[in-house]
Amino acid sequence: MNGAESLVRTLVDCGIDTCFANPGTSEMHFVAALDRVPGIRCVLGLFEGVVTGAADGYARMADKPAATLLHLGPGLGNGIANLHNAKKAMSPVVNVIGDHATYHLRHDAPLTADIEGLARPVSDWVRTSPDARSVAADGAQAVAAALAPPGQVASLILPADTAWNEADGLASLPAVAPRPAVDGDTIAEAARLLRSGETCALLLAGRALREDALHLAGRIAAGTGARLMCPMSNARLQRGAGRVMVERVPYPVDMALALLADVRHIILIGSKSPVAFFAYPDKPSLLTPDTCEAFPMAAAGDDLLGALEALADELGAPPQAAHVAPADRPEPASGDLTVDALATTISALMPEDAIIVDEGITVGRQVPAKTRGAPPHDWMQITGGAIGIGLPLAVGAAVACPDRPVIGLQADGSAMYTLQALWTQARESLNITTIIFANRTYACLRDELTNVGALNPGRKALDMLDIGNPDLDWIALARGMGVEAGRATTADEFNRQLAAGLACQGPYLIEAVL
Amino acid sequence: MNGAESLVRTLVDCGIDTCFANPGTSEMHFVAALDRVPGIRCVLGLFEGVVTGAADGYARMADKPAATLLHLGPGLGNGIANLHNAKKAMSPVVNVIGDHATYHLRHDAPLTADIEGLARPVSDWVRTSPDARSVAADGAQAVAAALAPPGQVASLILPADTAWNEADGLASLPAVAPRPAVDGDTIAEAARLLRSGETCALLLAGRALREDALHLAGRIAAGTGARLMCPMSNARLQRGAGRVMVERVPYPVDMALALLADVRHIILIGSKSPVAFFAYPDKPSLLTPDTCEAFPMAAAGDDLLGALEALADELGAPPQAAHVAPADRPEPASGDLTVDALATTISALMPEDAIIVDEGITVGRQVPAKTRGAPPHDWMQITGGAIGIGLPLAVGAAVACPDRPVIGLQADGSAMYTLQALWTQARESLNITTIIFANRTYACLRDELTNVGALNPGRKALDMLDIGNPDLDWIALARGMGVEAGRATTADEFNRQLAAGLACQGPYLIEAVL
Repeated sequence: MNGAESLVRTLVDCGIDTCFANPGTSEMHFVAALDRVPGIRCVLGLFEGVVTGAADGYARMADKPAATLLHLGPGLGNGIANLHNAKKAMSPVVNVIGDHATYHLRHDAPLTADIEGLARPVSDWVRTSPDARSVAADGAQAVAAALAPPGQVASLILPADTAWNEADGLASLPAVAPRPAVDGDTIAEAARLLRSGETCALLLAGRALREDALHLAGRIAAGTGARLMCPMSNARLQRGAGRVMVERVPYPVDMALALLADVRHIILIGSKSPVAFFAYPDKPSLLTPDTCEAFPMAAAGDDLLGALEALADELGAPPQAAHVAPADRPEPASGDLTVDALATTISALMPEDAIIVDEGITVGRQVPAKTRGAPPHDWMQITGGAIGIGLPLAVGAAVACPDRPVIGLQADGSAMYTLQALWTQARESLNITTIIFANRTYACLRDELTNVGALNPGRKALDMLDIGNPDLDWIALARGMGVEAGRATTADEFNRQLAAGLACQGPYLIEAVL
Repeated sequence: MNGAESLVRTLVDCGIDTCFANPGTSEMHFVAALDRVPGIRCVLGLFEGVVTGAADGYARMADKPAATLLHLGPGLGNGIANLHNAKKAMSPVVNVIGDHATYHLRHDAPLTADIEGLARPVSDWVRTSPDARSVAADGAQAVAAALAPPGQVASLILPADTAWNEADGLASLPAVAPRPAVDGDTIAEAARLLRSGETCALLLAGRALREDALHLAGRIAAGTGARLMCPMSNARLQRGAGRVMVERVPYPVDMALALLADVRHIILIGSKSPVAFFAYPDKPSLLTPDTCEAFPMAAAGDDLLGALEALADELGAPPQAAHVAPADRPEPASGDLTVDALATTISALMPEDAIIVDEGITVGRQVPAKTRGAPPHDWMQITGGAIGIGLPLAVGAAVACPDRPVIGLQADGSAMYTLQALWTQARESLNITTIIFANRTYACLRDELTNVGALNPGRKALDMLDIGNPDLDWIALARGMGVEAGRATTADEFNRQLAAGLACQGPYLIEAVL
C-alpha cells in the first residue's frame, strides 16, 4: 500500500465520506487511491474557491469535515478566500494539498511555492508529511484537528513522493476532547446578572444558534426578560415558525449602536463582543456603549448547549420559551419586482426544512424579517466577509443534505467570484435554486463610499463600483454551465420562476432584475 | 491631502499609469483619490485573479509595473495564483492591498487576516504602512522595489486610516540600480567553453528573449555552432519571421532529456539549469545529463543584452545571425478541426505584431512549430504553472498595447479559472481574440495519471479529470459577459471564425470544438 492509499483508507476510517477536489499532477496518486478505495464521494470543482467553499457548506450542515484536494501553492491560493470564511465559521475542514516530491523542491520548478506560508493564515493546523510512512498518522491527526471544538481548518501538505512510496498501513483517529463544560461559578454569575434588573442581552453564536439551544435561551428570556441576539454573520442559524427568534446585530454601525444602546450586560455565549465590520472615520469599532459590560460566559468551543441548560436550571426558567416565532407567511407578491416583493415571495414559497444560503449582501438584508414565520429552515451566511462563498456553500450544503431544498440568495457581484460552482451544481444534479439579485452594481460599496466620507464621486470612482456596462446575462452564464435558468422582471414572473425552480429536481437559477 | 491622495499622486509621479482594481470598503478613500487625481487608468476586474493576471500581462508588455488594488486578505488571496505566475515571470507589479484601520485590527472583525503572511510567498517586497505620513514614501519604495531588475512583485498594505488621515505630501522615486554588467572574466570563460569544440547550448531567458538579444545569440551561434535554447515557460519571447529561433525545452521529461542528451556545456543567460516541471517516480528532476556542466554566465537581473554583446565581441562573432526564421506560413487548413488544422490556420492568419497569449496546455504545444515563420510576434506563457493566467494576461497585454492584436490560445479547463476576465475585455473593448481549445477534459492530467504510474484508472478517477458532463458552452459564457463569440467544429468554420475575430474591433471568442 502506498502513502496515498494509506491516507485515503485512514480518512475513510476517520469518518470522511466526501472529497471536494481539483487535483493536478502532484495529486495523481491520491486520485488513483480515491479511485481504488471505496467510501469517499468525489465532487469536482472547476476552481478551488468552489472546492473550499463547498467543504465549508458541507461541514456546516453535516457537523463533520469533508476533505478538499488542492494542487500545490496556487491551488491552495485559489481556495484561500473561502478557507478564510470557513475558519471564521469555525467549520471543520481537512485540506489535502499536494506538493512536489520532497527531493524535487530544491530545484525550484515553476510551481514551487511556500505552501505552509500560504496555509497558515487560513488554517488552525498545518503539517507537511515528511515521508510515506507518516502520511496515515498525519491524516488522522488532521481529522482530529478539524474536529477539535468548535471546528478547525486543518491543512495537510502531501509531497508527491510521500503519496507514491510504500507506507506502513492505516492510522486511527486520535481521541478528540469533547467541548468543555462551563463551570458553575460562571453560570451563577451570569444568572446573577440576569436577575439584577439591569438590561441584559444574551449574544448567542455557533452551536448556540441551533433549535435546542435557542429553545433554552428562549426559556431564559421568558424568566428574566433578557434580550436574545446573535452576531451579524453566522455559520448556521436555525429559525422559522416555532423556533426562538434572535435579533441580529445589524451591519450598519448606527443601527447596531441603536440596537445595543440600552444594554448594560451582554452575556457572550459562543460569541465575542460585537464589533463593526469595518472601521469608519469618527465611528467606534466597538458596537456596545461604554456603559455596557461584556460577560464572557462560554467560548465558542465550550459545551454551549450544556451551559444554556445549566443557566436555565440555575434560573429556574419556565418551560415555555419567549420569542417563539408564530407561523406566519405572506401571500406571494405582485406588481413591480422590488426588494420587498422578492422577500415576500421567498417567504411565501419556501418549502419546509429549506437551507437558505444568504450571500444577498445589500438586497439580502430585507429577507430575514419576512421569513421569521416561514416553515423551519437553516440560514447560512458569509462569515468572513470574503465574497464568493454563496454558490459553493450551496454545493456543500446540497451534498451534505440531499433530501433538503437549498435556496441561494445571491448578490450578482459576489456570484461572479465563484460562478464555476454552477457547473458542479449541474454535474451533481444538486437541488439548489439560486436567486441572483441583479442590481448590476457593488451596491454595498456605493453606500460605503459615502460612509467613509468620500462624497460626490466622479465617473472613475462610480465605474469601479458598477458591474453593468456590459450587463451580465445570468441566464446565459448559467446555461453555459449546464444549469437551467429563467429571468424575472416583475413580481409575478418571479413567483412563477421561484415555483419552477423549487419544483425542479436539479439546480435552477433565477435572474431577478432589480 | 489625505494619505490615499498622497499615494496616488506619488504613484503617478513614479510613472504608474494603470491600476487594475477590485476595491472594497477599506479601499474607498483610495478609489476617491484615483477619481480626483488624473493620470491613472482604472480597469475593473470582477475577480482578483483577473486583476493580478492583468497586471502581469501589462508588465510583460509595457516593461513597467501597473498597480493593483485589492481588498484585504481574501482579495489578495484570490489574486495569489496569478501573483505566483507574475513572480515567476519576474514581472514588476505594485500591489496596493487595503486593510482595516490600524486601531480596528485588534477587534478581529470578520475580514481580519494575516495579510503580510499571505503576501510574502508571492512577493519580493512587503510593507504595511504604519500611518498616513508614511504612505507616500512607502508607495515610492514599492515602485522602486518592483522596478529592481529583473522585476519584482511589491505588496504595499494600506490600513484604512493611513488612507484617510492627513499626509505630508508626495515622495519621489528612489534611485533604482541598473542591471549590473557581467564581468569580463565570466564572459571570457563562456567564450572559452564555446570555442572548446564540445557541444554547447546557450539557455536564454527573460530579457535575453527579446529580438535584439536573440540576434546577438544568433551571431554567437553562427560563429561557434552553439545551440540556442530557452526554458519551457517564458514571460515573453519575440519570435517569427526574421527573428532568431530558439529551441524550447519541452515539458515531457523524456523529450527534454533527449533534447539535452548531447549537450556538454549549458551556458545560463538569465536562466537556471533546466528542471522537470514535476517529479515522477523513476525519472530525474534535472533535465541535463550527468555529463553536462552548467555555466551560470548571467543572472536574470544582470545586463543580459550587454553580456551577449560582450560575448559576441569576445568571440568575434560574424554579423549574420544563425537560426533566423525564414518567412514561411501555410495556407489555412481545411477538413476536420484537428489540432494540426488549428495551428495551421492560426499561423496562416496571424497579423503582423500580434501578441500571442499561450495557455493552450496540451493542445497549445503544437502551435509554436507552425508559427515559426509567421509575421513577427510576441509569445507569452504561463510561467508559474498556476492555470487561469491566459484570459487575464490578455487583458493586461491589450491595455498595455492598444494598437496590437492579442490572440489567446486557451485551454478550456484553464479558462474556467478566471473567465470573469471576459467581462473586462468587453467593458474595455479590448482587441483580443480568444481561441478556446474545447477538448472538455483536463487532458494534461490524463497523461499525467499515466506518467505517475497510475494505470487503468476507474470511473471516479476519470471523472475528476473530465470537465464534460455537462459540456461547457463557451458561446453562452462569453455572451453572458458581453463578448461576441462563435463556434467552430470544422477547419473551414474555424478559418471563418478566426478571420471574423481578428477583424472585430473589440473582444471575440471562438470555441474550437476538438
